[in-house]
Amino acid sequence: MPPTTSGRGRPRLESTDQRIFEAARELLRLKGPAAVNIDSVATLSGVARTTIYRRYRSRDELMHAILEHLIDPAPLAPDLPVGEKLRWVMERISDILENRLGPGATAAIIADSDPEFSTAVRSRLATRLSSLADLMTIDMKAGLLQPTTDPDTVLGVLVGAYLAEVLRFGSPRKGWMDRAVSFLAPAVVKN
Amino acid sequence: MPPTTSGRGRPRLESTDQRIFEAARELLRLKGPAAVNIDSVATLSGVARTTIYRRYRSRDELMHAILEHLIDPAPLAPDLPVGEKLRWVMERISDILENRLGPGATAAIIADSDPEFSTAVRSRLATRLSSLADLMTIDMKAGLLQPTTDPDTVLGVLVGAYLAEVLRFGSPRKGWMDRAVSFLAPAVVKN
Repeated sequence: MPPTTSGRGRPRLESTDQRIFEAARELLRLKGPAAVNIDSVATLSGVARTTIYRRYRSRDELMHAILEHLIDPAPLAPDLPVGEKLRWVMERISDILENRLGPGATAAIIADSDPEFSTAVRSRLATRLSSLADLMTIDMKAGLLQPTTDPDTVLGVLVGAYLAEVLRFGSPRKGWMDRAVSFLAPAVVKN
Repeated sequence: MPPTTSGRGRPRLESTDQRIFEAARELLRLKGPAAVNIDSVATLSGVARTTIYRRYRSRDELMHAILEHLIDPAPLAPDLPVGEKLRWVMERISDILENRLGPGATAAIIADSDPEFSTAVRSRLATRLSSLADLMTIDMKAGLLQPTTDPDTVLGVLVGAYLAEVLRFGSPRKGWMDRAVSFLAPAVVKN
C-alpha cells in the first residue's frame, strides 16, 4: 500500500500509512532489507503492530509495497541546455542512490545478502537508467552529444562516481558532483 | 603475522600460516569483517583453533594482520605509452576492489557496519590511490595528460566504474573495462 495523501491538496504527512511507509523506507535506507520487519517498523514508526498487520499481512507484503515505490518512474526530459543536462542526470542518479537506496540497501545489493531483493532493485534500477539512456540517445541523434557516446557506459560511470565517494569517504564530499560532471562533460557533450 | 614463503624461492603454498591467512581473507572478501573470527577461520582453513590461537591471540590481532597486507604498496609506474596507462591504473584499482576487498568488505565499508574497519581500509585505500595520483601528476607535468586533469577525480571515477558494475549486475560484465577506459581516455589523455 503506497503512502496516501488526503483528497484535498495538502498531504497528510503524519497519516498512519505514511508513518509506516516512511519508517520502513528509513530502515531499508540505513540498515538494508534485513532490518525491515513488522516489529522494527512498529518500533520506529510508533504505530502498533496490529495496525501494521491490518495493512500488510506479512513482512513480504510490506517489502513488496516498498519496492513498488522505491524508484520513481523516470521524469520527463528537462528543458535545459545540453551542457547542463549531464548534471541533471547525475542529480537524478544521486537522488536514487542517496535518498532511495541509501547505504543500507546499496551495501545489501553489493553483498547480495538478500538475492530476491537484489534482483528486484536491479531490475527497477535498470528500467530507470534505461529511460535516462533514451533521453541521451535523443540528444545524440540531434547532434548535441559526442557521436561515439554509449549512454549505458556514461550512466554506469555516473552511478559509480557517487558510489566511489561513499566507499572512499563515507558520504560524498562537498563539490564532488561539480568535479565529476566537469571531468566527464567533455567526453559526452559535443563542443 | 603475514603469510610466509620459505627461504628458498618457491612459496610453501599450503603452509599453516598461509592457510589461516587465506581463509581469513576469503571470509572478509565474500562476507565482510563480521564473518572473520577464529572459529570461522578454523572451519574454512581446516586448521585447529588452538593452532590459530598460537599465532593470533585474538580476533583483533588476526584482523590487524589481514589489514596490514590487504592493500599492497603501490607498484612502480609501468613503462607503457600514456594511452595504455589509464587501463593499467583501472586494472590496479579493479584488483583492489575485486580481489582484496571483494563484495563482503566493500559492502561493509559502504554500510559502515564496522566503523573501525571502514576507517582502516579507507586510510589504506587513500594511500594507494594517492600514489597512483602521483604517477598521473608526473605524466601531466610531462604534458602527456590533459592539463586540467584532476587525478583524484579521475581515480574516483575509475573506482566507481567498477563499483557500478557490481551494484548493477552483481559482477562486472564482459568488456566493461574496455568500455569505461575508451569513454574516459579522451577526457584524460592529451591528443
